[in-house]
Amino acid sequence: MKLFDGGRAPNPRRVRVFLAEKGIEVPLVPVDMGAMEHKGEEVTRRNPLQRLPVLELDDGTVLTESVAICRYFEELYPEPALFGRDALGKATVEMWQRRLEFNLFGTVSHAFRHIHPAMREWEVPQVAEWGEANKHKAIEFLRLFDKELENREFAAGDEFTIADITGLVAIDFMKPARITLPEECANVRRWHAAVSSRPSAAA
Amino acid sequence: MKLFDGGRAPNPRRVRVFLAEKGIEVPLVPVDMGAMEHKGEEVTRRNPLQRLPVLELDDGTVLTESVAICRYFEELYPEPALFGRDALGKATVEMWQRRLEFNLFGTVSHAFRHIHPAMREWEVPQVAEWGEANKHKAIEFLRLFDKELENREFAAGDEFTIADITGLVAIDFMKPARITLPEECANVRRWHAAVSSRPSAAA
Repeated sequence: MKLFDGGRAPNPRRVRVFLAEKGIEVPLVPVDMGAMEHKGEEVTRRNPLQRLPVLELDDGTVLTESVAICRYFEELYPEPALFGRDALGKATVEMWQRRLEFNLFGTVSHAFRHIHPAMREWEVPQVAEWGEANKHKAIEFLRLFDKELENREFAAGDEFTIADITGLVAIDFMKPARITLPEECANVRRWHAAVSSRPSAAA
Repeated sequence: MKLFDGGRAPNPRRVRVFLAEKGIEVPLVPVDMGAMEHKGEEVTRRNPLQRLPVLELDDGTVLTESVAICRYFEELYPEPALFGRDALGKATVEMWQRRLEFNLFGTVSHAFRHIHPAMREWEVPQVAEWGEANKHKAIEFLRLFDKELENREFAAGDEFTIADITGLVAIDFMKPARITLPEECANVRRWHAAVSSRPSAAA
């Protein structure tokens, strides 16, 4: 088994943090996204969408999409449960994973890709107006998320889950996207400090 | 239990098709999205993101996000399995669900929301250039999906799954988004005819 990894990019980080929380070690194959290696033959033949990470099993089977790769490991190694436990728990984790993915991770990514000069060759056409609109969407969601965190420790409840990983990676991605966490979001700040202090955050 | 439903909108349809495949009946509460009722108090107090569908359990617990609602029912009623069976199967379904969601459902939605005149009050600002870019992204993905369907019956393998539901709803949403399936995508056409002919497609 090997994981084609994209270094500092947010999706590869999501999977590395997940694996660290599970205590699973998977051999990494570094792919230099700065040098556009994810558009090269090695990645393209495994993932025609030319995105990372890509997991290749020993029999050559390929899995892509960060959350799908995480789900694979959750099924193989259920503890600690990072996708929730019973029916309602699993649905609640999925709800918050998706809310954070679409309204924070997604909006921050759009802001970065459509505004940052380094993304000119990555996102064609770059549409600055759409990038700016996403900064506002991200801030709006952060205010909503802040209210939610008033009454609980983690994104989806009292346990750390994949929803926290998506949130952590999204918040850290705000820096290159030049989005500032509103001063008044004290609960998001407390939560971000807590998830950042876990050893997995360095993965 | 009741499901706040949004009629013709694509996300509510995803959940209705899923429930029909499972043979589950849930009382529907119709919400008139055309009259902006999803921005009203009844929905907002249950889902501050003001989106549909919303599932409310008998104890008042609320679940939102179509795929999270579907996951809840999958856990309660595992057969027929619409999220896959073993670890690799579940991960593969999740991979295709996400590929179809981001690259087809998402791009078609962006094209619709950013170009269609009826969406002027829904998507502020409407960015026509971004809408057009998404038409191209959708077509590009359909060509890739067509190659994949050359060797299998359904989106994620030999069984009908939630990935097919996302794909079906996305393809049908291409009509109001004014995107035409490329003539040469014969496999997508065959697959779309097959999934459209299932009784659940009318849900």
